[in-house]
Amino acid sequence: MNPKSAIFSKYLSDEEIAKIVSDEEFIRKIFQFEIALAKEQSYLDMIPKKASDEIRTVLSELKIPPLALAEGTLQNGIPVIPLLELVKEKLSAEARKYLHFGATSQDAMDTALVLTLRDGLGVINERLEQLQKNLSKLLEKYGNTPCMARTRAQLAVPIKFSNKIDAWLQPLQRQQQRMQEISESILKVQLGGAAGDLAVYQDKGEPLLNALASALQLSRAPSWHAQRDSLCEFTNWLAMISSILGKMGSDILVMGQSEINEVTENAEGGGKSSAMPHKNNPILSEALVALAKLNAGLQSQQLLGMIHGNERDATAWILEWDCIPQMLINTGTALNHALTITAKMKVNTANMKKNVERFKNKE
Amino acid sequence: MNPKSAIFSKYLSDEEIAKIVSDEEFIRKIFQFEIALAKEQSYLDMIPKKASDEIRTVLSELKIPPLALAEGTLQNGIPVIPLLELVKEKLSAEARKYLHFGATSQDAMDTALVLTLRDGLGVINERLEQLQKNLSKLLEKYGNTPCMARTRAQLAVPIKFSNKIDAWLQPLQRQQQRMQEISESILKVQLGGAAGDLAVYQDKGEPLLNALASALQLSRAPSWHAQRDSLCEFTNWLAMISSILGKMGSDILVMGQSEINEVTENAEGGGKSSAMPHKNNPILSEALVALAKLNAGLQSQQLLGMIHGNERDATAWILEWDCIPQMLINTGTALNHALTITAKMKVNTANMKKNVERFKNKE
Amino acid sequence: MNPKSAIFSKYLSDEEIAKIVSDEEFIRKIFQFEIALAKEQSYLDMIPKKASDEIRTVLSELKIPPLALAEGTLQNGIPVIPLLELVKEKLSAEARKYLHFGATSQDAMDTALVLTLRDGLGVINERLEQLQKNLSKLLEKYGNTPCMARTRAQLAVPIKFSNKIDAWLQPLQRQQQRMQEISESILKVQLGGAAGDLAVYQDKGEPLLNALASALQLSRAPSWHAQRDSLCEFTNWLAMISSILGKMGSDILVMGQSEINEVTENAEGGGKSSAMPHKNNPILSEALVALAKLNAGLQSQQLLGMIHGNERDATAWILEWDCIPQMLINTGTALNHALTITAKMKVNTANMKKNVERFKNKE
Amino acid sequence: MNPKSAIFSKYLSDEEIAKIVSDEEFIRKIFQFEIALAKEQSYLDMIPKKASDEIRTVLSELKIPPLALAEGTLQNGIPVIPLLELVKEKLSAEARKYLHFGATSQDAMDTALVLTLRDGLGVINERLEQLQKNLSKLLEKYGNTPCMARTRAQLAVPIKFSNKIDAWLQPLQRQQQRMQEISESILKVQLGGAAGDLAVYQDKGEPLLNALASALQLSRAPSWHAQRDSLCEFTNWLAMISSILGKMGSDILVMGQSEINEVTENAEGGGKSSAMPHKNNPILSEALVALAKLNAGLQSQQLLGMIHGNERDATAWILEWDCIPQMLINTGTALNHALTITAKMKVNTANMKKNVERFKNKE
Repeated sequence: MNPKSAIFSKYLSDEEIAKIVSDEEFIRKIFQFEIALAKEQSYLDMIPKKASDEIRTVLSELKIPPLALAEGTLQNGIPVIPLLELVKEKLSAEARKYLHFGATSQDAMDTALVLTLRDGLGVINERLEQLQKNLSKLLEKYGNTPCMARTRAQLAVPIKFSNKIDAWLQPLQRQQQRMQEISESILKVQLGGAAGDLAVYQDKGEPLLNALASALQLSRAPSWHAQRDSLCEFTNWLAMISSILGKMGSDILVMGQSEINEVTENAEGGGKSSAMPHKNNPILSEALVALAKLNAGLQSQQLLGMIHGNERDATAWILEWDCIPQMLINTGTALNHALTITAKMKVNTANMKKNVERFKNKE
Repeated sequence: MNPKSAIFSKYLSDEEIAKIVSDEEFIRKIFQFEIALAKEQSYLDMIPKKASDEIRTVLSELKIPPLALAEGTLQNGIPVIPLLELVKEKLSAEARKYLHFGATSQDAMDTALVLTLRDGLGVINERLEQLQKNLSKLLEKYGNTPCMARTRAQLAVPIKFSNKIDAWLQPLQRQQQRMQEISESILKVQLGGAAGDLAVYQDKGEPLLNALASALQLSRAPSWHAQRDSLCEFTNWLAMISSILGKMGSDILVMGQSEINEVTENAEGGGKSSAMPHKNNPILSEALVALAKLNAGLQSQQLLGMIHGNERDATAWILEWDCIPQMLINTGTALNHALTITAKMKVNTANMKKNVERFKNKE
Repeated sequence: MNPKSAIFSKYLSDEEIAKIVSDEEFIRKIFQFEIALAKEQSYLDMIPKKASDEIRTVLSELKIPPLALAEGTLQNGIPVIPLLELVKEKLSAEARKYLHFGATSQDAMDTALVLTLRDGLGVINERLEQLQKNLSKLLEKYGNTPCMARTRAQLAVPIKFSNKIDAWLQPLQRQQQRMQEISESILKVQLGGAAGDLAVYQDKGEPLLNALASALQLSRAPSWHAQRDSLCEFTNWLAMISSILGKMGSDILVMGQSEINEVTENAEGGGKSSAMPHKNNPILSEALVALAKLNAGLQSQQLLGMIHGNERDATAWILEWDCIPQMLINTGTALNHALTITAKMKVNTANMKKNVERFKNKE
Repeated sequence: MNPKSAIFSKYLSDEEIAKIVSDEEFIRKIFQFEIALAKEQSYLDMIPKKASDEIRTVLSELKIPPLALAEGTLQNGIPVIPLLELVKEKLSAEARKYLHFGATSQDAMDTALVLTLRDGLGVINERLEQLQKNLSKLLEKYGNTPCMARTRAQLAVPIKFSNKIDAWLQPLQRQQQRMQEISESILKVQLGGAAGDLAVYQDKGEPLLNALASALQLSRAPSWHAQRDSLCEFTNWLAMISSILGKMGSDILVMGQSEINEVTENAEGGGKSSAMPHKNNPILSEALVALAKLNAGLQSQQLLGMIHGNERDATAWILEWDCIPQMLINTGTALNHALTITAKMKVNTANMKKNVERFKNKE
């Protein structure tokens, strides 16, 4: 049992993102890279058109069971090598010579990763937009309700519920704006060859790089095999999104405490207890807080991964392989739960007001 | 694609430990808890023997597909509730009343966890012993070879290869000794009822706790629902094992650099490159370093999980659900790779000596 | 002894940044906030001009020894309260009423923090520019030298030294560009009053906020007491800078190994050893790697700090108090060392070429 | 301003521990090592008695201002080298030859560290004992008071206040017991010479090691320059202590919320607010939670430090220099605050009972 297991696939994972970061999709994206590479190399007369056509035809159909790569990945420390070996078995001797022509495994891996991030970012952006709509509706409906501010775990002064919602909404707006500014620097093609300098392609290197970027609708960039800052900026963004939602979850846990009862996470009835049937546990808010902590720890790992030695360094790279899919899943899961909460939350305006009155009377 | 995926199931995971922390085993261990609980309750005349017998008979055979728990886990924030619901469908109305009698979900979850740790620890201990044997063999065979010490990334003075091996072996010996001292405090039963105080069982609470501990061959302890120090001591131990192996990996990477060539990680040929067929990459040593970094980050998460609020707090508990299986897997994987390395490593004693001579001549 | 101690004040700290984040500067910046607040409040007829003038006159001269705040900070959990008490002793009864008028401690603390960040960012930006110049000079002078790429700890293929330098320079260029885009969202005033809603100032709240922002040359923003995303984006940027330099340090450590000897960190003679006088230890590169790891860990802490409960939450806020000064110091220190290295490094072009030749002959 | 600054020296630091980890004490402990080393070497006829006597006489009196070591530490990456240079200026030419005879900087640094840990552990153990007494008193006085259990942020069932106190006390008891078991493996002398193998001392190496251990009342161990597991076990223990107290702080924050009011952290009046004079903020409990989070992050850093390359590796070692003093200070501070809380806390037994009654009536 672990959060990546079937049991937790809905509570602590995100089925849509999990599919995007699945083995099957990874293989599909490696193939997308190889097909586009061959096609552009054929346009640039670097490889025969016939080989390129065969590569496209074969790879478009080919299904490789992920488990078939496990032993080869153990042997080589990277799944691209056994994958290409299996692919070559399906190609003619001629086409085989031109598959992955001049490229290095990391070119395929990193480009596949970027294609994955693009898919993931699409899902996350949609949810972010919907979440902002949900929050805006709550703002409109309940924003003017007086309620108590709480500072340093004590009642402070009366504010409006809008102040609480703004503390969730404004950072989301700010950060969605930021993503638009930085997405180009993240969604960039990787092509460098063995040591990242395109030397293997001689004077065709630059045109090929441009053509490949264009074919995959990615931005063009010099090889970034050992330059991992943009990825790290992206994962920090993911962690910030989940921390914003963690703060929302944390606030709802307080407002939803039995003794305070200003909101109920899920008006339709939340988590039950095996020993206490009276309970309606705010289990999604709890997950929001926990997921934020998970991502906070993972970002540290991703930053360590930037200390990438020499021209390629798996002691650092492996950290990313672990972090990025998990951080996407954690963020996606948090967004899903935030969407449920903001759609189903019961706002007990009467209690909010009562708590304000009680405070005023005490003063 | 992620390290828990099929593709990486041999390079960055451990099939044996993965099975131990699988959903199926988790369910099996929950059943083990429920069967033992009912049996001891029947001995203590707390529930009818007939009910206890039925519970044992049904649960011994029952297979629940993990995915069947996903929706209920999302609804309740804990898998025990939907699991018991499914189990109850298979029981008579009478037996149903006595399943999980007086217990709370966390009693079942924590005891199942401890049973998992016992299995995991068994595997890890065996590998630790074998690894020490492998290292002792290397010590015997090559220990007297003169080689260079390297301090602060520079050649220092001549030592013997035994000094390097000792820096891997001695901490393993010390820490395996430690585990024998602390295993009792980890492998303890959990039974407390709703709020952890056994109140529900009145004067039968203590005898039941003792009987259950004895039945499951666990040590007896007052309820530790919100006391997570022993778990945290255990995970730090896992992280230390992987850091010891990370240090070994790091040393082998240096000694195995093309320019130094004092050892070859895998004499039979290691990792290849898609662009550079001449390479023999030390991919297991790289994994050792990376796995150590993963566990180091996870221990921070586990320590955060000790800040467990009130009598039960999923904002903290979820951190453990994520950490513990992953840290077991990471440590198990590292041990596997260390076993491979120590069995297959080529020690280039001639080069070690040559490097010492070259250093002496320069002085 | 610790990295913040006098002993390590040059090796693991940065005297210039340490001064910017010192207690004395913090007090000075709190005063800057209080003076500007009073002045703008007087312009807006919220407080008497005479009080504002007295506040400016007194606070411009006043020196409070930081240690005088220690006991009051222990009592109140925040240094602004004892600081204002000490200040009030120096003010007339009239002016005393108008000091910190309507503001809350966090308004002063956060604005002082932002003024600190502006100073720190100024220093860091200057060094970043100089470092890029140093790297460009190295590029010009040595960029065309053939040298070996190393992938996965093994010799790969010949490249040019420019490829290595680019892996350090390009991310720095990219990230300095990024800081220009985001600095406005970081350098924003904080003013909200007790619960962050400016309610205390009634219809003068908005004009006061604008005036204060303008007086302090900060951007204007609604209160962000519990919205810590921009700070977190900033600290991640700091961590990325130090990770980029950590990668540079890591590369220099490899190229500078005795057996490789392609660069010498410090041509004038680096770290010595108490037991081995022949050594020239690359101690600045080691520090670069270590500082990157420190910042990576701290960013995780800063992200946890974003889970800021309710309207004010010191269980989260304290994390920032610890992180931000340390991350500024770590990054500043790393930049200093990188400047020294890039100015004093000896590039052994003959050895680079020899290593390439040796590789070619082996093939 | 930062938690190590004068302003926070009482709230987020610990003056007693801060003194133990100060530069001055570090220098004093290095001298303690050098004096003992010389003395035992003279007993073993390795150096002249006269030199040993002079070393003892001079070092017993000598005061070196820590700042005098800053530049040399920057030059050499380690403070022992400039320190010994300054010491040598005070010695005769003869004695100078025998100072630090055969030892390496790390021998002095690590032994000084261990002597520091012994002092720190002494203070921490005393406080742990006092804290257990305070908690036992609370247990005796208020343990039988009925109060509400809270699980997953909701009221659960009635328990007794003793259950809450036990969740703080029992882990402290368990972990203080553990420290007694492991302290020998931590408090061990370091002596290895340049590469850790004692080779420099030939057949006198072993007797010298034993004599030195005995003189400093430390346990004897083969050189552990690159074996950092025992330190890491110790820091995890520190982090567990602070996490146990973080859990206590977290519980008190909930029970002390204005709406619940079952305890008041400080009956004599706690933290005030600059904008809200009615408040009594539980600022020590907040610090307990924050300090636990700081230590949790630092333990990850300490574990990374175990991946110590070759025979000496400052990219890892520096991590410890930063972690260990900070973790000692954080734990010491947390213990101080826990002592204050347990001595001054007001337990509102009437409110505890009222909350139980209210719950029962609702059921």
